[in-house]
Amino acid sequence: MDDNHGPLSAQAMLEVAIEEARAGLAEGGVPIGAALFTTDGALLGRGRNRRVQQGDPSLHAEVDAFRAAGRQRDYRSTIMVTTLTPCWYCSGLVRQFNIGAVVIGEAETLRGGHEWLAEHGVAITLLDDPRCTAMMSDFIAENRALWYEDIGETP
Amino acid sequence: MDDNHGPLSAQAMLEVAIEEARAGLAEGGVPIGAALFTTDGALLGRGRNRRVQQGDPSLHAEVDAFRAAGRQRDYRSTIMVTTLTPCWYCSGLVRQFNIGAVVIGEAETLRGGHEWLAEHGVAITLLDDPRCTAMMSDFIAENRALWYEDIGETP
Repeated sequence: MDDNHGPLSAQAMLEVAIEEARAGLAEGGVPIGAALFTTDGALLGRGRNRRVQQGDPSLHAEVDAFRAAGRQRDYRSTIMVTTLTPCWYCSGLVRQFNIGAVVIGEAETLRGGHEWLAEHGVAITLLDDPRCTAMMSDFIAENRALWYEDIGETP
Repeated sequence: MDDNHGPLSAQAMLEVAIEEARAGLAEGGVPIGAALFTTDGALLGRGRNRRVQQGDPSLHAEVDAFRAAGRQRDYRSTIMVTTLTPCWYCSGLVRQFNIGAVVIGEAETLRGGHEWLAEHGVAITLLDDPRCTAMMSDFIAENRALWYEDIGETP
């Protein structure tokens, strides 16, 4: 990754999120990763779901990346990249802070708010990356209770 | 406060959130407080906006209270109380985790998502507490840049 020489492609940004998701999986966590970039390609923050690792239900991947970026004055020229389509919680984060764009690895294993974000002017790029879909599908099949807990559902 | 002897009134729950907001103000922070209760009146977690104190933009009051409550399996019988109507980020939290009810101190100084939550089945109680409105109005008048930063707006 080279963040200092011009804009990154959506796919290149997604690679950072996938690295985070894989690190989470290796830690026994929910394998979702995210990162916040400027439109110039600079990495502001990266993160991953840390429910298991830190016992913290508030740290969805997008929130962890947002937190890692620290205090910012203006998010309109930032891009949130995430391995999985943002849930309502993370979609609300994007809308409230006027994050300009969201790059999504896959949107098959969760139904969240990315269409709602598009209606409110957020630029959505859905990459349909089969590595992301496989990682989540495998995880959900083997960790159903943990997955439902992470999205607040009660089977 | 007595959390062990039967349900609390909405006003009694709000007092906990106000205590948190005042503690935040005394720390130099954004004075918004929140708490998560069960419908039986047990306090699961309490928190406050910690943008200034921890340099953490992800810790809106409701998120801090949700975090303090730790991992939970089912939020349908919980009540989120907050001194200020939830922004889109915190409204998304409530919707995603199926928090059953939200008690709001005031909704004059921010336009957030509580009507959207009501449309999605969340029970909303708006108390219109003048102490909450005064605390936020005074804070915003004296800390306009910080306030806009906290809600992701660019004046």
